[in-house]
Amino acid sequence: MDSDYGVPRELSDLQKKRGLYQPEIPPCLEGTTVRVEFGGETTASDPAGAHVVSQAFPHTYGQPLAHFLRAKSNVPNAQIITEHPPRRVGVVFSGRQSPGGHNVIWGLHRALQIHNTNSVLFGFVGGTEGLFSQKTLEITDEVLSSYQNQGGYDLLGRTVDKIRTIEQVNAAKAACETLKLDGLVIIGGVTSNTDAAQLAEIFAESKCSTKVVGVPVTLNGDLRNQFVEANVGFDTICKVNSQLISNVCTDALSAEKYYYFIRLMGRKASHVALECTLQSHPNMVILGEEVTASKLTLLDITKQISDAVQARAEQDKYHGVVLIPEGLVESIPELYALLQEIHALHGQGFSDEKIFNHLSPWASALFSFLPPFIRKQLLLHPESDDSAQLSQIETEKLLAHLVENEMNKRMKEGTYKGKKFNAICHFFGYQARGSLPSKFDCDYAYVLGHICYHILAAGLNGYIATVTNLKSPVNKWKCGAAPITAMMTIKRWSRGPGATSIGKPAVHPASVDLKGKAYELLRRNASSFLLDDLYRNPGPLQFDGPGADAKSFTLSVEDQDYMGRIKLLQEYLDKVKSIVKPGCSQEVLKAALSAMASVTEVLSVISLSSNSQGFQ
Amino acid sequence: MDSDYGVPRELSDLQKKRGLYQPEIPPCLEGTTVRVEFGGETTASDPAGAHVVSQAFPHTYGQPLAHFLRAKSNVPNAQIITEHPPRRVGVVFSGRQSPGGHNVIWGLHRALQIHNTNSVLFGFVGGTEGLFSQKTLEITDEVLSSYQNQGGYDLLGRTVDKIRTIEQVNAAKAACETLKLDGLVIIGGVTSNTDAAQLAEIFAESKCSTKVVGVPVTLNGDLRNQFVEANVGFDTICKVNSQLISNVCTDALSAEKYYYFIRLMGRKASHVALECTLQSHPNMVILGEEVTASKLTLLDITKQISDAVQARAEQDKYHGVVLIPEGLVESIPELYALLQEIHALHGQGFSDEKIFNHLSPWASALFSFLPPFIRKQLLLHPESDDSAQLSQIETEKLLAHLVENEMNKRMKEGTYKGKKFNAICHFFGYQARGSLPSKFDCDYAYVLGHICYHILAAGLNGYIATVTNLKSPVNKWKCGAAPITAMMTIKRWSRGPGATSIGKPAVHPASVDLKGKAYELLRRNASSFLLDDLYRNPGPLQFDGPGADAKSFTLSVEDQDYMGRIKLLQEYLDKVKSIVKPGCSQEVLKAALSAMASVTEVLSVISLSSNSQGFQ
Repeated sequence: MDSDYGVPRELSDLQKKRGLYQPEIPPCLEGTTVRVEFGGETTASDPAGAHVVSQAFPHTYGQPLAHFLRAKSNVPNAQIITEHPPRRVGVVFSGRQSPGGHNVIWGLHRALQIHNTNSVLFGFVGGTEGLFSQKTLEITDEVLSSYQNQGGYDLLGRTVDKIRTIEQVNAAKAACETLKLDGLVIIGGVTSNTDAAQLAEIFAESKCSTKVVGVPVTLNGDLRNQFVEANVGFDTICKVNSQLISNVCTDALSAEKYYYFIRLMGRKASHVALECTLQSHPNMVILGEEVTASKLTLLDITKQISDAVQARAEQDKYHGVVLIPEGLVESIPELYALLQEIHALHGQGFSDEKIFNHLSPWASALFSFLPPFIRKQLLLHPESDDSAQLSQIETEKLLAHLVENEMNKRMKEGTYKGKKFNAICHFFGYQARGSLPSKFDCDYAYVLGHICYHILAAGLNGYIATVTNLKSPVNKWKCGAAPITAMMTIKRWSRGPGATSIGKPAVHPASVDLKGKAYELLRRNASSFLLDDLYRNPGPLQFDGPGADAKSFTLSVEDQDYMGRIKLLQEYLDKVKSIVKPGCSQEVLKAALSAMASVTEVLSVISLSSNSQGFQ
Repeated sequence: MDSDYGVPRELSDLQKKRGLYQPEIPPCLEGTTVRVEFGGETTASDPAGAHVVSQAFPHTYGQPLAHFLRAKSNVPNAQIITEHPPRRVGVVFSGRQSPGGHNVIWGLHRALQIHNTNSVLFGFVGGTEGLFSQKTLEITDEVLSSYQNQGGYDLLGRTVDKIRTIEQVNAAKAACETLKLDGLVIIGGVTSNTDAAQLAEIFAESKCSTKVVGVPVTLNGDLRNQFVEANVGFDTICKVNSQLISNVCTDALSAEKYYYFIRLMGRKASHVALECTLQSHPNMVILGEEVTASKLTLLDITKQISDAVQARAEQDKYHGVVLIPEGLVESIPELYALLQEIHALHGQGFSDEKIFNHLSPWASALFSFLPPFIRKQLLLHPESDDSAQLSQIETEKLLAHLVENEMNKRMKEGTYKGKKFNAICHFFGYQARGSLPSKFDCDYAYVLGHICYHILAAGLNGYIATVTNLKSPVNKWKCGAAPITAMMTIKRWSRGPGATSIGKPAVHPASVDLKGKAYELLRRNASSFLLDDLYRNPGPLQFDGPGADAKSFTLSVEDQDYMGRIKLLQEYLDKVKSIVKPGCSQEVLKAALSAMASVTEVLSVISLSSNSQGFQ
């Protein structure tokens, strides 16, 4: 009910205490002056697609990076913004709820008020539908009071999570114009930020004065690239899930008779599954990216798990915990192909009953092979982003079922002499999504909210708010903004008949990097995790004491601060320029030329070979 | 693998911090002197069965209550035990893992060491099977170091959880004799404590000198009676589950499109579901006890939930959270009867395929009406206590399925005009059972461990360790022991052909008391929970700050300290005796006689009427 949005509510003691928590902000956001330094012009991360992106986004492509600086930092060419007229800003939740989302709104509201108390922040109630129908709630300290540092999206709600059709875009534009918005802040993941970029371009094209800003908030952790190190909500989700996984590990070890198959939410990519594995050390995880890379079939995976069960049985171990990312089903080649056929037939209007008769012979053979419960789930209509309804497909049950059959077969054949295999299946999804956000997510979201104001004050359009150097304490965080177009790539391969994104630039979900340090850490430990039961229990999410400030492994082990390092490079180049000024000696010039010739050649070679692989 | 038991392991930062936590003990357990005061002789709680219990337990029935007192408390007839020869004690986990179990062992070990450092504590590895095969691990400070205040039962493990057959009893006796045990401590729930009483009786009968002590440790919270106020693990389980339920509530409220049906572990009784409802305020809970009391059928319950969905739709609410205790399936009369038929046919050796043909006509009609997934689950063999495999039967999915059909039907008929009903199902069980124990469970279990020593020091056999006044701070807790036979009742009705407990005295699981204060609290709020979305999020389990010391509602609202009040009554009686001594005035005697005649008459009348209803 719309009238319920933003109502004050009764909080538990812990919620009240969390409500009083004041997130830190880094020094660059303190005070009432905004100082922005622009970096080099950006290019699309996929050079092959840069031309397509630039054509699709003529007004917003190629904009420079922006760095927000301390009021007193000594950067000569930084732009200082001291004028702060009252601004009218709208904010909307677009995308699945992710812990910390409320704090983006709080941070934004705070920043607006600090710079001009006459500024107004409108929250669109009921998500994107509220945006289209111009239903707003004015955000005030009072409205925020029982939502600060709290989970969920219930302050404003969310609905269809799409601003894409002509009608939707026009409705959004009409809302911005009617409300005379200086800025529109869109909180969401890859799809919503693609929509934000699209909206920014259309607004610029049609001279609508509203600037559009995106904020990376998604529990999937898949809006990740050179500019965006982490997403709001990922830290909390992984901590809550790791606690539960660890509890199940402890349980497995206590009774020693069950294999637990746990499916984790996180959409196509396996970031959540990887991080949870690093936190809680279950025996096994099947990452979708590994399956894709090795083209493992359903039977390959079944064999892999069965072999693990057998190896453990030889050590007299009849329990274990196996993690399955929900996106796995789309990574298994034959299931993916089957899903594509089904979705295509759905698109042609066939009913569930008739689809079976129209499948290709091999697809229908696979379909018949699968147990009935999974058939029904595969027949579900695809989601708005053309992917299967991942949260509804019980891949964990399918695998448990296949492994059970395989172990029974081996037992019968005498190749497995252990005890009967017993599996219990779990899906950890919705129970983590509404959690109280971790300290990290509270801080990160609040800071991003502040940055949204700085982006709007700097007059930028089509940018995403960024914080880099996140693995360091808050006072070392670096704040900036990057054009969303710089994160876009183009998919050229078909994704079934419903696919709308082929050939169109979009921010695509980042996969787990199989050459990255987080995955390497997993590989290094995989065999001891498998056999030695090195279960580790990070415990329930804490807000004080040990563990409260722990950052995710994914964040801690990877190289970071791309934006900071880009800036450092610029400084080196400037230094060379200033040393080799007209009038310098022949020797200096000669040395500089020779050195730079060598540098450029090396970089060209590396650049060519790495581009052919695409950005990780 | 046996050799893995009790091994030190790597702990997370939070686990390490929890490992350092030193639970408090109440003043009566401090020092090196044990002072015990004996209360009145006990009777079985069901007077009608008292005779049967006394016949079955000639050596251990009717023993007095024991109260452990402060070393300096002024009780003239307390027995003071200052001799503390070295004792040999064995301890075994029997029953499903419950958070806090490790601390019973820690408390017991500590108490043994305080009184005589030459005492030895043996843990039986691999649960009851370890007891039968005499596999032990000597418990030392070093062994305990990484298990203090930690969840699970993995220090020693657990297996079949039964000490009941002649072979099992003899094996247990042989183990006690071979190891020359002075005491055997059995950690578990209703079944294990019944086994403990049985063992105590047999040991006494056969002059085996080992004394048997039970400890109430079960997450189900159903080992509850006049003497036992709470069970170790229940507090943690309810806190962990309430967190997750609350997260789901927040999630429901954010997207407003799903009904979540959540099934909760907790066996036959609905204590966990009731407590979680009081902690997190979901829209609805279907308690098994209500269903039994009102004889609700599957269709009644479907209608009840559907009506609720419809009433909420009229307020434009299309989301909600419904809790289902796992025991519900056995409370629904027709499902229970069907299960009994199936279990009887299993008992006669019929295979799953053949069972259908041998069901009674109406049972087979019901079976055919049910969706395939639930049929398969109902066909599972019953557990060792003759109940269905509650954790495996997805009653939440069955109800969601039936409600969906009903709402679709109403929609077609035009009696429901709202949006389509969408359900998502969850089972919260194994993910809570292995949790780090709450502060309450850490303290309670540790204190119970100490009490076990005091029971053995006092030479008692067939007792359960008790702490009363639990809703007060630890320094006000009262420690004692009660004969397990005093908690026994006799079931006279048939429970299917596999039922072994008919007519035999046993500690039966306590149901939720529909006249109790906790249930009353739920009823008072049920309609506002249903319609007003008063969701409350206690947040993740904390060990410091707000919420860390919160006690369960069930504990807080009920009248407590039965044992303390029994003691107080004794004091009043003694006082009357000391006032009305031979030699007192006629007036005093007359007044005393008149008053006591009235008191005894009133009590006789009340006693008769309440006995006909049995103990709650």
